[in-house]
Amino acid sequence: MIKVSIITIGDEICIGQIINTNAAWMASQCTTIGAKVINHIVAEDEKESIIQALNKLTEKSDFILLTGGLGPTHDDITKQVLSDYFNDKLVKHEPTYKKLEEAYSKRGTEFLERNKGIANMPSKCKVLTNNAGAAPGMLFKTNNKFIISMPGVPAEMRDIMANHVLPLIKKEIENKQSDVVLYKTLNTIGIPESHLADLLGNPEDFMEGGTLAFLPSFKGVKLRIGYNSENMTLAAKKIEQIEDYIRKRAGRFISSTGEEGIAETVGNLLRKNKKTVSVAESCTGGMLGASFTDIPGSSDYFMGGVIVYSNDAKIKMLGVNPNTIDKFGAVSEETAIELAKNVRLKFNTDFGISVTGIAGPGGGTLDKPVGTVWLGLSDKESTAAVKYVYSNDRNVNRELFTGRALGMLYMKLMENK
Amino acid sequence: MIKVSIITIGDEICIGQIINTNAAWMASQCTTIGAKVINHIVAEDEKESIIQALNKLTEKSDFILLTGGLGPTHDDITKQVLSDYFNDKLVKHEPTYKKLEEAYSKRGTEFLERNKGIANMPSKCKVLTNNAGAAPGMLFKTNNKFIISMPGVPAEMRDIMANHVLPLIKKEIENKQSDVVLYKTLNTIGIPESHLADLLGNPEDFMEGGTLAFLPSFKGVKLRIGYNSENMTLAAKKIEQIEDYIRKRAGRFISSTGEEGIAETVGNLLRKNKKTVSVAESCTGGMLGASFTDIPGSSDYFMGGVIVYSNDAKIKMLGVNPNTIDKFGAVSEETAIELAKNVRLKFNTDFGISVTGIAGPGGGTLDKPVGTVWLGLSDKESTAAVKYVYSNDRNVNRELFTGRALGMLYMKLMENK
Repeated sequence: MIKVSIITIGDEICIGQIINTNAAWMASQCTTIGAKVINHIVAEDEKESIIQALNKLTEKSDFILLTGGLGPTHDDITKQVLSDYFNDKLVKHEPTYKKLEEAYSKRGTEFLERNKGIANMPSKCKVLTNNAGAAPGMLFKTNNKFIISMPGVPAEMRDIMANHVLPLIKKEIENKQSDVVLYKTLNTIGIPESHLADLLGNPEDFMEGGTLAFLPSFKGVKLRIGYNSENMTLAAKKIEQIEDYIRKRAGRFISSTGEEGIAETVGNLLRKNKKTVSVAESCTGGMLGASFTDIPGSSDYFMGGVIVYSNDAKIKMLGVNPNTIDKFGAVSEETAIELAKNVRLKFNTDFGISVTGIAGPGGGTLDKPVGTVWLGLSDKESTAAVKYVYSNDRNVNRELFTGRALGMLYMKLMENK
Repeated sequence: MIKVSIITIGDEICIGQIINTNAAWMASQCTTIGAKVINHIVAEDEKESIIQALNKLTEKSDFILLTGGLGPTHDDITKQVLSDYFNDKLVKHEPTYKKLEEAYSKRGTEFLERNKGIANMPSKCKVLTNNAGAAPGMLFKTNNKFIISMPGVPAEMRDIMANHVLPLIKKEIENKQSDVVLYKTLNTIGIPESHLADLLGNPEDFMEGGTLAFLPSFKGVKLRIGYNSENMTLAAKKIEQIEDYIRKRAGRFISSTGEEGIAETVGNLLRKNKKTVSVAESCTGGMLGASFTDIPGSSDYFMGGVIVYSNDAKIKMLGVNPNTIDKFGAVSEETAIELAKNVRLKFNTDFGISVTGIAGPGGGTLDKPVGTVWLGLSDKESTAAVKYVYSNDRNVNRELFTGRALGMLYMKLMENK
């Protein structure tokens, strides 16, 4: 097994100012090609922290991937630390210098001294070109282990990962004929974690040496199957057997596999059934539309919507009867129904979805506490609304409302199937 | 200084299936009260990994905060590992058992054996109540160090952090009269990192022993000032001096401080000036509306908008002239202007913003490559549109378009000031 560790350098990650999305992306990419990611460490912008992390990880890892600390300012110390760590020194790297010079002259901005410093590289490293930015990556090889440093800017890290790092890991897996680990995730909807576990029974009875993980989330429990094998084909075959077993017991709860989220599942069903949808959003303010349009090609089925954040907009833009709002309130079954029906008619779509609720922190009452939402769904035959009451903060409530609205359309599409 | 380390347990984080948002949140909370977060480690769901992480961190940390692995399924091993680590054993914790029993009976769902196991706790730990879920937290104290385990579900972790962990860290800082570290972030807009660094000069000349970090992002460069001191008041005073110096040199680029993002800054300016806004979104599909409505109280100034994802919606919902789309295309200055103006008139707001672009991966042409966007801004006096061309993937493009649209309104509000 080729083992990978990830070191993310930066006080901003350490103190929680920034979420470590780079580590997750890198880990998922390495996992996809069969390598095993065994550790992530976040280290401060401090020589001692970085060196301790390197020392700790070198023993157990075949690859150590570092990001961060390669920019042009004084707090970017990774290059100097690695140069010292390998008893090396920085020398001007001509190809990088020329590339920078050209880029600055093209852009017409001044090539500052601090930008020139980016072209000084440790003499012993292999310089990894960066097509998405200024600072190149660095590759050191020592005792048959690879230590690779990349910029922390996500697009630049991704460029170097795709062009240099992932191909190299793949080659190592082949050269060493290493075991690989393969994963497959089954996404469920509509069943709690414990019930799913009982439905499946003891994992030892059907996992045949593989691993099974339960991952609860807002949008349902994910089941992740993992299998170690000498190659991808064998691992895939084993996983297929395990998946078959799980589907026999819990197949009706499995909405999709892998990275496919509920918005994509719903989108695929809409496309397959040649149906279209539009949305009327109050408290989610555009999140439901944004979820649909996150998916490339969503213009096949998503026509648009109206963000009816104010009551005035509900009345003027989607023709909700002012009496409905007066009598039942903006967060009510009646308003949700009018919104869903009217947005469907206005956009001339097969389905109309509405979301009207109280995300918080303000706006709650005894009758309708923060976390209350009415979700409407309209098609040519009928329009109905359902109520949920959650009790979380604004961000979580908005995500839950959006997830439930997508889930509601999913259920409808499945029953029509 | 009270030093905190964070261990996140879970294969799903290790292999990159889930982004480690918990660690960031915990770190930011600890930082806010003056503790110093020195390390995050992500460990696999494996006894050896967890114990190695504990051993590595115990020496340097006053607090070790663990999350994950406390659920009801076989891959949740944290409780057993900690029990073994402290030579302890699990015993039934009556108050927890009763609480669970009541909760299940209330809900009318079966109290399964695997749910009952949640009430078995290590005998030596202090049980930390969890108001947001089933599994309580655990606190162990050894050699004057605190080791605290919490569930990985964010709402549950946050509940235990707020009620138990943060008050305890605060008390330790007081009891030990520890030094504290305080941070303040200044958010800039409209200036590249290197130019900002040159404008400020050598940090040693004005940081007076504090630290200065440059954090580039889609929405501008953040400057983070850090200062160690014997108490919060002294640290705050020093930071104020440093901030004054920075503002004298670069004040015109500073749009906000701290966690306040551009949507909140723009929202506050709108509220202060008693202005309202509406949006017309094509490729962002609701993201701009969602950004405005992320902010509590946004109903004071955000009235709503239209998601005009299809050309049909642009024409029917916002009265764009079909000839405009025929002649110039949906992604054009002319369409952006009609959208911005018409949404403003329809919603009767002071400002109308439009976004029409090509997020990708499909839809690009030679003339209008993926990443092209026209942003329109309309008020009572005039309507204009600007074009940007980025070259990233769909998600990044959509974020950039949204950020730029907010930036455009910010600039307008500042010039009207």
